[in-house]
Amino acid sequence: MTNPPPDPARTPLTASGAHGQPPREPDGAYLDHAATTPMSAAALAAFVAEAQRTGNASSLHSAGRTARRAVEEARETLAKFLGARPSEVIFTAGGTESDNLAIKGIFWGRRAQDTRRCRVLVSAVEHHAVLDPAFWLAGHAGAEIVLLPVDGEGRLDLDALRAELAAHGDETALISVMWANNEVGTLQPIRDVVRAARPYGVPVHTDAVQAVGQVEVDFTESGVDAMTVSGHKLGGPVGVGALLARRDLALDAVLHGGGQERGVRSGTLDTASIAAFGVAARHAVECLPQRAARLSALRDDLVARVRVAAPSAVLRGPEPGSADRLPGNAHFTFPGAEGDSLLYLLDSAGVQASTGSACQAGVPQPSHVLLAMGVPEAEARGALRFTLGATSTGSDVDRLVAALPQVVARAQAAGLVSGRSIGGV
Amino acid sequence: MTNPPPDPARTPLTASGAHGQPPREPDGAYLDHAATTPMSAAALAAFVAEAQRTGNASSLHSAGRTARRAVEEARETLAKFLGARPSEVIFTAGGTESDNLAIKGIFWGRRAQDTRRCRVLVSAVEHHAVLDPAFWLAGHAGAEIVLLPVDGEGRLDLDALRAELAAHGDETALISVMWANNEVGTLQPIRDVVRAARPYGVPVHTDAVQAVGQVEVDFTESGVDAMTVSGHKLGGPVGVGALLARRDLALDAVLHGGGQERGVRSGTLDTASIAAFGVAARHAVECLPQRAARLSALRDDLVARVRVAAPSAVLRGPEPGSADRLPGNAHFTFPGAEGDSLLYLLDSAGVQASTGSACQAGVPQPSHVLLAMGVPEAEARGALRFTLGATSTGSDVDRLVAALPQVVARAQAAGLVSGRSIGGV
Repeated sequence: MTNPPPDPARTPLTASGAHGQPPREPDGAYLDHAATTPMSAAALAAFVAEAQRTGNASSLHSAGRTARRAVEEARETLAKFLGARPSEVIFTAGGTESDNLAIKGIFWGRRAQDTRRCRVLVSAVEHHAVLDPAFWLAGHAGAEIVLLPVDGEGRLDLDALRAELAAHGDETALISVMWANNEVGTLQPIRDVVRAARPYGVPVHTDAVQAVGQVEVDFTESGVDAMTVSGHKLGGPVGVGALLARRDLALDAVLHGGGQERGVRSGTLDTASIAAFGVAARHAVECLPQRAARLSALRDDLVARVRVAAPSAVLRGPEPGSADRLPGNAHFTFPGAEGDSLLYLLDSAGVQASTGSACQAGVPQPSHVLLAMGVPEAEARGALRFTLGATSTGSDVDRLVAALPQVVARAQAAGLVSGRSIGGV
Repeated sequence: MTNPPPDPARTPLTASGAHGQPPREPDGAYLDHAATTPMSAAALAAFVAEAQRTGNASSLHSAGRTARRAVEEARETLAKFLGARPSEVIFTAGGTESDNLAIKGIFWGRRAQDTRRCRVLVSAVEHHAVLDPAFWLAGHAGAEIVLLPVDGEGRLDLDALRAELAAHGDETALISVMWANNEVGTLQPIRDVVRAARPYGVPVHTDAVQAVGQVEVDFTESGVDAMTVSGHKLGGPVGVGALLARRDLALDAVLHGGGQERGVRSGTLDTASIAAFGVAARHAVECLPQRAARLSALRDDLVARVRVAAPSAVLRGPEPGSADRLPGNAHFTFPGAEGDSLLYLLDSAGVQASTGSACQAGVPQPSHVLLAMGVPEAEARGALRFTLGATSTGSDVDRLVAALPQVVARAQAAGLVSGRSIGGV
């Protein structure tokens, strides 16, 4: 584990890179790549090159046309490496916006075609960027939300989906099931979802934010109608993402205005971030096989050594050996300990992890993902997620494993004192 | 005009700047700063410094807290230089998103408090990022849109606003009037709008995208409830902006998810762009007096010389000497010529201008702004906007004036040939 193969995202691709400087490593052992992963030197160099040019990609003069060319080149790159057509790529400000556009845009679009279609089917383990728009539609637009159950490893219950569609397929506006779960790393049976939905004419959206660059993702081959991608989860900048959407999908806009991106997403095109996103996506997909193999082995090592260092730890999600789990994801609950205590104690020891989704950090509630998997609330409170990325090495795991026994003991001791707040465990 | 005073945004502020490289000038004379203006070297340096760190500002570990500090520092800077409190700054992906959040968010928020409030009052010369969300609400949420008229120079008709409020103040959800028009540069009587709205409890939003850094803008002093600001119009990056919003304003979210930005704007905080935005906003406001004086004089020179070079040109918007016009804005119509022809011919001569809003570029319709000002459709088709910014110099004007006579003559000749398409003029 101490001598990983080289990964293009870890070193500048050009002699100069982003002015020759590779991205700085976060201090200590950074095991939170699912929250955000370092921007690659090549992506930063692309950003800087474009940011030093001036031109609004909607302007008709030469500066505008130069910016437009950079945008279209990135669009082609993204399409190529994600198995889509360039015209299917809609640039957004990130994963959350793409999810909002998919859920609201498809709901409004499909219901406008057929007013009976009010049901929105989402898996119970979706990110809040999918769940919250859906529930907002329930409060503001007459949507009925159906939470699709998952099994104990977080995998969608396909029979439940089929039964729901058999009963209400004609009233269903859309289905949204993520490609891979952001907390426990479970890969979902997307092709089966598409197969189930097709007879009823129900569009399928998938949030692939955690999947792209980690596992093979092919938009066209998957059969989904829309797919969310984010820049900063694959070595690109924060604040840029895309919704891939089939041209025949009825899709209403969420951001209205200048009419950019075929009228579906208004706002000045962020040329520099889009160019950097294209570069990052290309590298993420190109080096996927070698990176996935390396991270998978590193993750297996992490899981095995965590189980030795903290025998009470319970792995959540599919077994590491399984093909149904993201290569860089490990997730445990530690009985009798609060996730936040574990997180802060590990941080003091120079190890950066997460209790689950960064977006929900600081929210003193057990993860809805774990609860949907049937994990009792008291156990769900002791969750810790470790996620690996391009810059991860064996020494990150060494540092975690060295710190863990004492951290768990102290967090469990604190949990015993404040026993009631963690459900009496 | 050939020896302007130094402007901090034009040279790196630190010895190294963004690795010592000032922003590259667009080729030729770039007279389209209202569409987008060069990112300053200092802003780019701030971006690069943050982009080389890794950390999601929502994460609780030390990398996350470091990112959070950078975001909060930028929030304080922005608040300080725009006359707001830090807690009133909501970061977004740009002006269009901020406008959408304001129009939809205030509409839903105010109507939830009082179901009679369905009327949305917007000036007829708003940017499409305000108009289009309003009309979308009419189609999807039962809003009634009232377009407030303007005078021949694009200035809001305050009597019409007062009459509308006297008749329907209790049914009004919000008013949106821009601080300065993006096409003809007209400054609006925002304080009078606020004064008129207050007795009826109607919140006021203003799109100040074109105003910040050009004229003095003080959020608190203006009395508005919400204000839109954009990064790339003041020397910051594209893809970042803010909505300033009073804490007591009922504001629903447009992007739902992780609950960032007090639950009003979900999505991973774009630390690098936000930091760069803060730096750019500070410089834009700090050097405003000297820059405004310089650009105002340069613009007056441009107007005077255009009138000599193309005597048929008709200035639109307030007279340059007036206090009611943005210092860097000049706008003309050229009778008998198509704006697009003028634009392309000028571009061939190395002069980059716009027919109006970049967002509407390529849309073969006369500007709604000019039509609202009472400009006949045929004349409105011959519009050209010249906008100056930090990097503008007298030589840009020289180049425009040298090219203009032949460009206008050729565009008018082309107009005569295709006479019918430009209304027979």
